[in-house]
Amino acid sequence: MNRNEALQLVKAQLTEKRYVHTLGVAESAVELAERYGADIKKAELAAIFHDYAKFRPKEEMKQIIMEQNITKDLLDYHSELWHAPVGAYLVEQEAGITDQEILDAIAYHTSGRIGMTLLDKIVYLADYIEPGRSFPGVEEVRKLAEQNLDAAVIQAVRNTINFLMMKKQVIYPATFHTYNDLIKNLKEKM
Amino acid sequence: MNRNEALQLVKAQLTEKRYVHTLGVAESAVELAERYGADIKKAELAAIFHDYAKFRPKEEMKQIIMEQNITKDLLDYHSELWHAPVGAYLVEQEAGITDQEILDAIAYHTSGRIGMTLLDKIVYLADYIEPGRSFPGVEEVRKLAEQNLDAAVIQAVRNTINFLMMKKQVIYPATFHTYNDLIKNLKEKM
Repeated sequence: MNRNEALQLVKAQLTEKRYVHTLGVAESAVELAERYGADIKKAELAAIFHDYAKFRPKEEMKQIIMEQNITKDLLDYHSELWHAPVGAYLVEQEAGITDQEILDAIAYHTSGRIGMTLLDKIVYLADYIEPGRSFPGVEEVRKLAEQNLDAAVIQAVRNTINFLMMKKQVIYPATFHTYNDLIKNLKEKM
Repeated sequence: MNRNEALQLVKAQLTEKRYVHTLGVAESAVELAERYGADIKKAELAAIFHDYAKFRPKEEMKQIIMEQNITKDLLDYHSELWHAPVGAYLVEQEAGITDQEILDAIAYHTSGRIGMTLLDKIVYLADYIEPGRSFPGVEEVRKLAEQNLDAAVIQAVRNTINFLMMKKQVIYPATFHTYNDLIKNLKEKM
């Protein structure tokens, strides 16, 4: 599928604001893929489709989680987390994307996962630093992303955990496991 | 066992500095027990014994974790975590304390646990706010501890997780689960 076909499919699913965000994520993902040697085409497609399910009704997302091969523990956590794995499912069903690397990068763009792939990291990070984002700490992550992908992803996960803790929100365990896994891999490299 | 007997046993196990810390934890634990209606005697004993195993050789602690009914996953994490459950075991063996509430408060004073008891929370918090402690954020937790035990414990756990993340340390999963459990309970009360 080419970029324009993908954008057309996604545009129909999103608000204008979220579509502009998606364009930013695609731009950042391509940049990161170039910098860190990932497949640029896959990074761009995964980025374009990452929020595909963002505005689906909760009930539909719940139904898909219950019926498909998606971890059920998500249902005990904030529905904000649901659109990522549900999106991967719908992108396969409705847009005909079958590349597992792309689908995984979509599925794990919110929580991360143990053993994140290069593509997972790029989409996660692009979603965090795309040009339209402005929140405390984003500039620091942007700078890290220019030099060290893992350091940037760790900083983004850390900020996310800390932000949720400041708001006294429950944290989805996969997010914790992602943090620990990234730190363990970092230490093994040192 | 009375306070003086307990102090004598503990003093032999600790450095002078750690003994002074222990006296501070005992003082804070008694204060918290009075304020929140816990058993004062148990709170004091648990506080006195909380760091009993702090200076045992790593090899001895490892051996005890492997042989006793202590979760083995601790061995994959920082040895700083080991003295708490090992302490509970040794306090039973060597000091003859058999009260399970006291032993649990000792065992979980570093990581916390899902379903922390009133006594667990008091010893965890006393260890964090005792008068000898001075680090960023402790004063805020001290103030919270005067008004709301759970809010104070949450703040202490949050600071601890954040501190470890700032140092790029792996975080023991029980600490995360403790945070989530405290937040869930808080929301259920609201």
